Amino acid sequence: MEKGTLIIGGGVIGLSIGWRLRARGEPVTLLERGETGREASWAAAGMLAPVSEVHFQEDVNLRLGQESLRLYPEFVAELEAFTGKEVGYRREGGISVSLHADDTAELRHRFEYQQALDLPVEWLSATEVQNLAPALSHNVVAAVYSPADHQVDNRKLVTVLRCAFVQAGGILHEQTPVEEVRLLEDGPPAVRAGGREWRSEKLLLAAGSWSGMIPGLDGALRPWVRPVKGQILAVRAAPDLIRHNIRTPDVYIAPRADGRLVVGATVEEMGYNADLTVGGVFELLRGAWRAIPGVYEMPIHEIWCGFRPGSRDNAPILGETEIPGFFIATGHYRNGILNTPVTAKYMSELILAGTMPEILAPFSPARFSG
Amino acid sequence: MEKGTLIIGGGVIGLSIGWRLRARGEPVTLLERGETGREASWAAAGMLAPVSEVHFQEDVNLRLGQESLRLYPEFVAELEAFTGKEVGYRREGGISVSLHADDTAELRHRFEYQQALDLPVEWLSATEVQNLAPALSHNVVAAVYSPADHQVDNRKLVTVLRCAFVQAGGILHEQTPVEEVRLLEDGPPAVRAGGREWRSEKLLLAAGSWSGMIPGLDGALRPWVRPVKGQILAVRAAPDLIRHNIRTPDVYIAPRADGRLVVGATVEEMGYNADLTVGGVFELLRGAWRAIPGVYEMPIHEIWCGFRPGSRDNAPILGETEIPGFFIATGHYRNGILNTPVTAKYMSELILAGTMPEILAPFSPARFSG
Repeated sequence: MEKGTLIIGGGVIGLSIGWRLRARGEPVTLLERGETGREASWAAAGMLAPVSEVHFQEDVNLRLGQESLRLYPEFVAELEAFTGKEVGYRREGGISVSLHADDTAELRHRFEYQQALDLPVEWLSATEVQNLAPALSHNVVAAVYSPADHQVDNRKLVTVLRCAFVQAGGILHEQTPVEEVRLLEDGPPAVRAGGREWRSEKLLLAAGSWSGMIPGLDGALRPWVRPVKGQILAVRAAPDLIRHNIRTPDVYIAPRADGRLVVGATVEEMGYNADLTVGGVFELLRGAWRAIPGVYEMPIHEIWCGFRPGSRDNAPILGETEIPGFFIATGHYRNGILNTPVTAKYMSELILAGTMPEILAPFSPARFSG
Repeated sequence: MEKGTLIIGGGVIGLSIGWRLRARGEPVTLLERGETGREASWAAAGMLAPVSEVHFQEDVNLRLGQESLRLYPEFVAELEAFTGKEVGYRREGGISVSLHADDTAELRHRFEYQQALDLPVEWLSATEVQNLAPALSHNVVAAVYSPADHQVDNRKLVTVLRCAFVQAGGILHEQTPVEEVRLLEDGPPAVRAGGREWRSEKLLLAAGSWSGMIPGLDGALRPWVRPVKGQILAVRAAPDLIRHNIRTPDVYIAPRADGRLVVGATVEEMGYNADLTVGGVFELLRGAWRAIPGVYEMPIHEIWCGFRPGSRDNAPILGETEIPGFFIATGHYRNGILNTPVTAKYMSELILAGTMPEILAPFSPARFSG
């Protein structure tokens, strides 16, 4: 049995926890079934928008997201300083727009909830929206501005996290799918992958929507996560045509520094079916066009899809299992990029100190037991 | 100067004329700038629909298309027998539908014109349309059935034409763009390509929308053709869900044997800009969905674009130029696949016999002179 932590899964979650563990001197080995960061981490839009995306009755998720947003500037600064690479972190804020009166009632209802939670939001008239984001449709009736909602280029983020992990001394095995895990009397499960067996003092499962499919993990040890398909596309606009995250009742639109606008996303329970569909792409194009009429003439840069890891209650699964030394960090659903810093910080503390940080308590794997 | 004919352009037109020339014993060499058949021949939908697509005041085009449609069965039979390969020729006919009352007036107007021209068409009630093609929308108000309009798999066609040309002894040089043509005192221009000079008794220019861009061809010798961009896509449906060519006021839908439905096409004057655009793809998806509601759930198989060679009057340019031995066959616009057999037959006769077949007379390059 080797010292340190073995991590299964090389997305933003596995890589960032691994990087934080290495920074504290922990030996870390990471097994990735394919290429690092090419699944949900790659497919995401990179909106850091816990305020705009607040859901009724999901206060613990909101608190987690807000803490992660608070940690983001320092996390990014440290990551960029350590690697010398940028991750496209932007702080322009988000604008949630209504495009007709029915939308406005819904927007107002959410705005009041945001205010009740003391979130930083501002109601904008149509004129104020036009001044803030002139490329938006003249059909915008009203909007809520959320200055605290930020953005990151998630593809850069996961690429830079990979650099940081390796540069910090983490050992990375790509193209190494786990064939089986085997429960042991003493310590966490042993892992068979790439034709050999791996045993470490600690094991972290961070395999996104594949976390529930590891052979040998059964019953209470098997995290219940499912793939939630998202179709998403990017168009090429002039840089700075749009600077804010835009949310409409139909789509969100996340700008990139090079002018690309990422338009997302469908939410579909389709297993791992990766088809782009007529209806999915049609709704994204229509939604983008309704919000920003100028996109009609713009080139489509890319269309893709990905699989969010969704738990039974759509909240992440973060903590130690009933087997000492066996940890899980998955189920981030639509908020994996947002919740990377908070997951990295507190999961690495949990793995090293063995005591559960208070903020992770609501997300324990134990909540699904019994 | 070599005996025989040198052809510039390896699409359906150049390859099919070359094949017919070889069948008559003519030595033929073909220069293709890239890979054969990957431009307009590849991008097309393969509808053979001169009846459904009849345009007012374009009777000479109609006659050419009808003659080509008449030649198609024998052309295909000979090609398939010679090569042992299939080209996906189908005779299910076409259905032009109207989706609301305004469309119906337009459809009726065209129907009366089709009847006046003695074309085989049949007016269908909504119920009759449903019986003929149950996958069509229940919003179909009426339709015109054109049993004579057929289909071919244009990608198979051009691939098989390449086989036939080579198998018949044609000499093919791919990746050999023409660098320059040089006018000579005696005979057709000499061609510089691939670092050497080519001279033959006869020269045929069949380079589609690139025909006007050959360096050295100026003035009356330069065919005026422009690229007319079309965006087009394919969805994957169950085989035989749709068996007919479908035309709506927005799009056409051409079925393939494997179930793919080809949905086309935008008509854009954008030069060689090959971008897929938000608006272009959006209109194709919307048009397909309006005609066949079931496509909403279907996977998008492919999205692409191509460049139709459009002449000044949108009719093909077929014949000998004012330089004896220098022939042109280009400008087929939206009907290159349809007009392949008629072009191959009569252009090869013209090149071999030197006398103009009557059917080609209206399409002479001379019509743009003076």
